[in-house]
Amino acid sequence: MFQKQALLLRLVTNVTNNLTGRKISNNVGFIGLGNMGAKMASHLIKKGRKVKVYDVSKSAAQSIQGAQICNSPKEAAEDNSIVITMLPDGEIVKEVLQTENGILKGIKKNSLFIDCSTIEPKSAQELAKISKKNSIRFLDAPVSGGVTGAAAATLTFMVGGDAKDVEEAKPYLLQAGAKVFHCGDYGAGQVAKLCNNLILAATMVATAESLNMGTKLGLDPKVLTDIVNVSTGRSWTSETYNPYPGIVKNIPPANNYEGGFMVKLVAKDLGLAENAALQCNAPVPMTALSHQLYRTLISQGFGDKDFAYIYQFLKGVN
Amino acid sequence: MFQKQALLLRLVTNVTNNLTGRKISNNVGFIGLGNMGAKMASHLIKKGRKVKVYDVSKSAAQSIQGAQICNSPKEAAEDNSIVITMLPDGEIVKEVLQTENGILKGIKKNSLFIDCSTIEPKSAQELAKISKKNSIRFLDAPVSGGVTGAAAATLTFMVGGDAKDVEEAKPYLLQAGAKVFHCGDYGAGQVAKLCNNLILAATMVATAESLNMGTKLGLDPKVLTDIVNVSTGRSWTSETYNPYPGIVKNIPPANNYEGGFMVKLVAKDLGLAENAALQCNAPVPMTALSHQLYRTLISQGFGDKDFAYIYQFLKGVN
Amino acid sequence: MFQKQALLLRLVTNVTNNLTGRKISNNVGFIGLGNMGAKMASHLIKKGRKVKVYDVSKSAAQSIQGAQICNSPKEAAEDNSIVITMLPDGEIVKEVLQTENGILKGIKKNSLFIDCSTIEPKSAQELAKISKKNSIRFLDAPVSGGVTGAAAATLTFMVGGDAKDVEEAKPYLLQAGAKVFHCGDYGAGQVAKLCNNLILAATMVATAESLNMGTKLGLDPKVLTDIVNVSTGRSWTSETYNPYPGIVKNIPPANNYEGGFMVKLVAKDLGLAENAALQCNAPVPMTALSHQLYRTLISQGFGDKDFAYIYQFLKGVN
Amino acid sequence: MFQKQALLLRLVTNVTNNLTGRKISNNVGFIGLGNMGAKMASHLIKKGRKVKVYDVSKSAAQSIQGAQICNSPKEAAEDNSIVITMLPDGEIVKEVLQTENGILKGIKKNSLFIDCSTIEPKSAQELAKISKKNSIRFLDAPVSGGVTGAAAATLTFMVGGDAKDVEEAKPYLLQAGAKVFHCGDYGAGQVAKLCNNLILAATMVATAESLNMGTKLGLDPKVLTDIVNVSTGRSWTSETYNPYPGIVKNIPPANNYEGGFMVKLVAKDLGLAENAALQCNAPVPMTALSHQLYRTLISQGFGDKDFAYIYQFLKGVN
Repeated sequence: MFQKQALLLRLVTNVTNNLTGRKISNNVGFIGLGNMGAKMASHLIKKGRKVKVYDVSKSAAQSIQGAQICNSPKEAAEDNSIVITMLPDGEIVKEVLQTENGILKGIKKNSLFIDCSTIEPKSAQELAKISKKNSIRFLDAPVSGGVTGAAAATLTFMVGGDAKDVEEAKPYLLQAGAKVFHCGDYGAGQVAKLCNNLILAATMVATAESLNMGTKLGLDPKVLTDIVNVSTGRSWTSETYNPYPGIVKNIPPANNYEGGFMVKLVAKDLGLAENAALQCNAPVPMTALSHQLYRTLISQGFGDKDFAYIYQFLKGVN
Repeated sequence: MFQKQALLLRLVTNVTNNLTGRKISNNVGFIGLGNMGAKMASHLIKKGRKVKVYDVSKSAAQSIQGAQICNSPKEAAEDNSIVITMLPDGEIVKEVLQTENGILKGIKKNSLFIDCSTIEPKSAQELAKISKKNSIRFLDAPVSGGVTGAAAATLTFMVGGDAKDVEEAKPYLLQAGAKVFHCGDYGAGQVAKLCNNLILAATMVATAESLNMGTKLGLDPKVLTDIVNVSTGRSWTSETYNPYPGIVKNIPPANNYEGGFMVKLVAKDLGLAENAALQCNAPVPMTALSHQLYRTLISQGFGDKDFAYIYQFLKGVN
Repeated sequence: MFQKQALLLRLVTNVTNNLTGRKISNNVGFIGLGNMGAKMASHLIKKGRKVKVYDVSKSAAQSIQGAQICNSPKEAAEDNSIVITMLPDGEIVKEVLQTENGILKGIKKNSLFIDCSTIEPKSAQELAKISKKNSIRFLDAPVSGGVTGAAAATLTFMVGGDAKDVEEAKPYLLQAGAKVFHCGDYGAGQVAKLCNNLILAATMVATAESLNMGTKLGLDPKVLTDIVNVSTGRSWTSETYNPYPGIVKNIPPANNYEGGFMVKLVAKDLGLAENAALQCNAPVPMTALSHQLYRTLISQGFGDKDFAYIYQFLKGVN
Repeated sequence: MFQKQALLLRLVTNVTNNLTGRKISNNVGFIGLGNMGAKMASHLIKKGRKVKVYDVSKSAAQSIQGAQICNSPKEAAEDNSIVITMLPDGEIVKEVLQTENGILKGIKKNSLFIDCSTIEPKSAQELAKISKKNSIRFLDAPVSGGVTGAAAATLTFMVGGDAKDVEEAKPYLLQAGAKVFHCGDYGAGQVAKLCNNLILAATMVATAESLNMGTKLGLDPKVLTDIVNVSTGRSWTSETYNPYPGIVKNIPPANNYEGGFMVKLVAKDLGLAENAALQCNAPVPMTALSHQLYRTLISQGFGDKDFAYIYQFLKGVN
């Protein structure tokens, strides 16, 4: 099946190339092979791309079946018109771009550099500037959907940058995900991601407060969830990621809050959201509170738990 | 159509009476005819009930077409097996029940007293005790769905009390609403309502923070909403009650935040939720914050605005 | 020395009686002999009063040297012109006042009933009404200074009620404390106490945040405290009740946070403060947050620790 | 008098030079002549220093009586062993240091560069590194005391860096202020300042909540302040910067909240404090809340008001 897809892709790519008048190779450089990146790179390979990969951890790179393993970002960037990064923060992306054996040393003029990391919007704008200076094109394209979405290739990409570049990126991104949104100019993808995640975090905390209070006052958590899910308190959290253990099967709350969206990562995103809010003078009191609650969980030793663990924390020791 | 419904109802009622072995009259006493109560009473009448109504405001009572207007709660309660109240707070319900010309003076032994007001769970439990002492049966049955839901008879009833009594109440409640949940023992209906509304309030504030920050950083609010609505930040608020003006038609944010769920009423519910949380030692930091934000709106003069006005408040004067 | 004081007191009392034209006995009824009440009653006895005491715990009553132990509030109230209560909450005060063998059954007409408990201002106003109906006079007179202040007779009394009654109470109160403030009408003593304590709680949390962050970033906590104590962050907390262990000697933070102002009691006061704020539509966001932080400490099992334990909680497990 | 002081200073300087074996000139370069810097530079001049000044605003520089006005930071730094900066933020300090006509271009090897700006501790550490690379010595020395303290030369300097360098700086700093604290290594001065100011902000908000609630419930604000000032709620804020208008004379709350510590500046410091807390994983929930409350004031148009204006904001429109 994948062979057919790969064949089809080549045809589509050719057509696209003819339409845009720009020669696009089938090849991708992929840098950053953590939980998310490894799965994304694998999907591209399975669907017919030749992917050159690099990670600081050699074993992470070696785990990607069918990939061409490289010794530096420079090498991974060479001979590709598309280079994708999926890295922990903006400083590291800049480093990987500009270092001695960095992307800029290998990438061809006019190539498309797509950063899928979650970083500060401001950092994304700096990456766009550095890219322009070096005659390459840039997109910020952070994802939502988490490790599950990466595994199932159902990620949503929120993309900032030039509309034509977004169109060019789509056939690639849609092999690793299900939806691509063009959010606006450089950095807008990051803004959209933070805007979504700050709602997610607050909704999780509020849903946890509700389930804790409700059950302590005698309600059956399943009945309460049923009510909320047909009422005005309904949300993605209450329906598909309910923090009460076992209400939804096969999610971290059903598995001792292991895996999932770790407390320390939601705290990172909330910190980025607060900084973005500062830049535009937007008060974010609720975001600040959910941020600090998650910081408190980290200081209590729960940084590696899934973020639904806030329910257990509020429930307490009794 | 309503005549047929009324006919059908009588048949069903007869069947039910035969099944339960208990004589249920077709008649209802309804006390409290504000925005919500007036619409609920009207639906009962349209669907074939004989309804005796009372309100402190005579003109409110007179506005209910087809109702039998009474001069006291006592009179409204006489000759009915079902008495429904829809009043502003628990103190008033107790007063209406126990006062000189109150419900208890008119209601028959073993009748069913259904309080649909939103009050403290503790108060509902006191009403249950008073009812028991006076040989009548009690249900707390607060609603969600607001004025719109009352007008369309699509309210959700969250009911606390005895299961048999809930079954007996259902044919009545389902004439004024669309769903009935039995939540547990006396007071459980109130607990469920507060549990839902605390999530609603926090989600509204977080969604407003997100839309304010996003648009200040250059996103199109419609695009951001589209993204959130297919992502993990999705909620009833983002989908059907979006606080950015005009994203959803025919809701208060599209109409200068007039009508709807008033700031002062959401603040009332959050205060009740906090008190309920105190009773069971459940920390509710996010509920406390959204409560205080709405209190701040009240102190700034926005108590009568729809609760989505928090978006405008965060947006500020610039 | 105390004999002389007692002698002097009798002289002063006689003079006062002559001036006011009202016969004041030297005797006091004292009900509620917990940590605070026991010390206060003892001071009155040591300084020459005849004190009739009652507590639900007989052994608590028996521990008061020189007291006349009674079997009911009624008995403790008999033959005294002054009756003082020091009890856990407003419901209990009302009970002790109105129960079958309660204060009202024993107290003489026109006597002065002084409630030193910390209760809701609204409850104090209800006590005033009940007192008036029963032809006795009432003062609410909660204290600040804690167990240490009670032991050293340095308490501050914040008193609500009639100015003449406050003057009459002063000679008694000043035997158990050092300062008496007339705050206003009935309930004003309670309001003043809550107003003070909400500042105290917030200042404690903020000082703990500062010391935790400062030391984690390398500052010597002693040096930081010295700086704060000559700067704009200075407070009673930073100077005399510093939450960092050992900075101030002989306070709970130097003794594993045992004793002192327990987390569960500061949480109780903050709950009362929030309810008082609700009655007057005063937003109290910071009070609500410190309240919820202390509720979180309770749910984590630290309700019996001194309230400075918030420092350890923020510091966390690392 | 100042002549005598200047004479004495020269003697002391000579003695110090002899003791340390290091030739210290009497001269100072001073860059940044805003509200604070202008007053500090003036004190140095009045007390006998030769001061070369630079500011982007020529008129600001010209207003300093007795100063030698320069055309660049480079020129201001030349021929001085001490160069002091007082600038809005860390980016500007770095710019002024490293730009084409910046400090580094004029300053002599081994000179002492003292930055009195309030900036991120991390930025101060970067300045220390840049200084070391360029063979000059660095101190971060932010101040507390505000414009009033600058005018009266009663500032407190919180200094991070090498102990010997702090000793060398003292005679200069004590001409513009009253106290010098050595807080620790590079950046420690900034940490101490932020630690102090986060307490200050929270205490101000809590004191404002208390005064608003107390007066709305009928207390006289003067009486409440008197009580708090002898009780556990006492603080620098309640005693010397009380937010209720007129309780303390000659401070901004007595003058329509004009001047003083502007809302936008306290918000800036709280933002820096939160970022510093992030670096060391210290939860700061109360700081985050007071930060967001001040951000809300900014969005409502009150950024230029004194930070005690939070009282008026909570009081609201009624």
